[in-house]
Amino acid sequence: MTDTINRQVLLIEKPAGKLGPEHFKLTDASMPEPKDGEALLRVRYISLDAANRAWMHGATYRAAVETNSVMAGGGIAEVVSSKSDTLKPGDIVFGDTGWQDYAAVPAKQLTKMPRMEPLTHLLSIYGIAGLTAYFGLLHVGKPKKGETVVVSAAAGSVGSIVGQIAKLKGCRVVGIAGGADKCAWLTSELGFDAAVDYKDGAVFKALKAAAPDGIDVYFDNVGGDILEACLPQMNLNGRIACCGAISQYDGAPSATGPRGVPGLIVVKRLTMQGFIVMDFMKQRDQALADLQGWVSSGQIKVLEDVIEGLENTPQALIGLLAGENRGKRMVRV
Amino acid sequence: MTDTINRQVLLIEKPAGKLGPEHFKLTDASMPEPKDGEALLRVRYISLDAANRAWMHGATYRAAVETNSVMAGGGIAEVVSSKSDTLKPGDIVFGDTGWQDYAAVPAKQLTKMPRMEPLTHLLSIYGIAGLTAYFGLLHVGKPKKGETVVVSAAAGSVGSIVGQIAKLKGCRVVGIAGGADKCAWLTSELGFDAAVDYKDGAVFKALKAAAPDGIDVYFDNVGGDILEACLPQMNLNGRIACCGAISQYDGAPSATGPRGVPGLIVVKRLTMQGFIVMDFMKQRDQALADLQGWVSSGQIKVLEDVIEGLENTPQALIGLLAGENRGKRMVRV
Repeated sequence: MTDTINRQVLLIEKPAGKLGPEHFKLTDASMPEPKDGEALLRVRYISLDAANRAWMHGATYRAAVETNSVMAGGGIAEVVSSKSDTLKPGDIVFGDTGWQDYAAVPAKQLTKMPRMEPLTHLLSIYGIAGLTAYFGLLHVGKPKKGETVVVSAAAGSVGSIVGQIAKLKGCRVVGIAGGADKCAWLTSELGFDAAVDYKDGAVFKALKAAAPDGIDVYFDNVGGDILEACLPQMNLNGRIACCGAISQYDGAPSATGPRGVPGLIVVKRLTMQGFIVMDFMKQRDQALADLQGWVSSGQIKVLEDVIEGLENTPQALIGLLAGENRGKRMVRV
Repeated sequence: MTDTINRQVLLIEKPAGKLGPEHFKLTDASMPEPKDGEALLRVRYISLDAANRAWMHGATYRAAVETNSVMAGGGIAEVVSSKSDTLKPGDIVFGDTGWQDYAAVPAKQLTKMPRMEPLTHLLSIYGIAGLTAYFGLLHVGKPKKGETVVVSAAAGSVGSIVGQIAKLKGCRVVGIAGGADKCAWLTSELGFDAAVDYKDGAVFKALKAAAPDGIDVYFDNVGGDILEACLPQMNLNGRIACCGAISQYDGAPSATGPRGVPGLIVVKRLTMQGFIVMDFMKQRDQALADLQGWVSSGQIKVLEDVIEGLENTPQALIGLLAGENRGKRMVRV
């Protein structure tokens, strides 16, 4: 360990509207000193997630991020030194490292991960993204063979996996994404049956054409207008897996919700269920075994979008919120 | 059978705004003649339900009602004559008789009911209202002892039973109803722990005081603003049983839904589930046995609001939509 300074990206202001580079500052701090029970970590990859933006609005499933502190974020890191019995130098862990080169984190808040190549897979298919797709689709959406599954933010880290799992379960899969290129990529590269470009307008009509038998499972990453367009097209006893509301994160949250709630929920006997991946961690081993099997057999393609350099983390998140990425975006530190 | 004419209430115009007496007409028709497989029924009690109004908007879980035909509605009736093997004169049945003195209805569309005194109980506690409350609360809301259950339209046919079942299951029960009198009645007569008068404004605050530990189960009969007020007060893993959206029925449906959907559903891992009682009919015997036990032991009070005369059916529905009734409203024909 030759570094003596620790570069950090601070959140210096909470955005009222769209997130921009002016809300962050790159700064040099001294190396953190691990306390008893903590490990000193060298951060290797930082995960970028739409949820990072939601944390700026206030408490969600975690406390809100605060200004003038290191921007929070999950990462894959290597243990440099340890004052905990459970971790030793060289161990690979996942945890909330924040956006920085080094972090001192209580061992209790870290999850030990296998050392694998490429390490990036621990943030994509075998990380939060893959597990979210797996549990949200299979345990919340519960698709049956022959049903129609629609997923929004379909080219993103979670959506791209949701669609592939739904395909291998024998469903008709429709992805909603922004832009003709992304849509073409979903059908040609990822095997989706159809794709709807929400930037093209007329989402309702395009969705109707793409899902002529109606929607049995809608995996919702975005909320807002797209949720509203899906609701009237849900079939009786349809399920909506509420994973996120990206459309609501970057800016002031909407003052209204989707039309048809709760009227259509009653009439169509729909179930809308929110979930977060942490609720399913007891079944993690089974999920990882399934995912590994599907990756080995080529039934799932792993899609990663790795950006170089801690200094580019703010722009990586801003771009993610604008829909730049295909697959799991992360920053190599 | 001495009658030679059959009085009928026709829906002569679909209301664009609020339902009024001008949308109906009382008329005399000739006695219906049952065809093969049908029974001729003498209607005894007509059920009034907020859903009657929703049927005027279009297809719901049933086809829309049409103008210049007999207004649809469930009723308890006695078989006068029968061209079906399964029914005989004197049998008591429940079915969509419509708003009229007599109806000829296919036996297949009728449910044979026990002859009991008072017959009105077949429309209230042992009818759709009681079963809706039972299944919606216990199978959809799934309250646990010690949890807080909130129910809207709490003085209505379903709500008044929901609250009483939740009480006997050991929950803290909060009713939302219109007017101080109704609210006082919920706590003094029906054993609710607290009541919130939504006509008093400041529903969010009043609900917070009435449910200081948050809401675990919200049994939603109304949708709209009250659903919006409940959402942020739901506890983690809370359940919303979506039974109806009365606030949306009488007038043009709202162009927006409740704020917080799907954001709060994700963050709080809520489940919103729509249901209709027909989906649970396989478990009807168990439900009726439970309800009978609770009525016998005095744990549930049966609340009925019986209005005399077919000619008063339109006004009975209009009044129900305005919140006049306490307990199950019906018309004795």
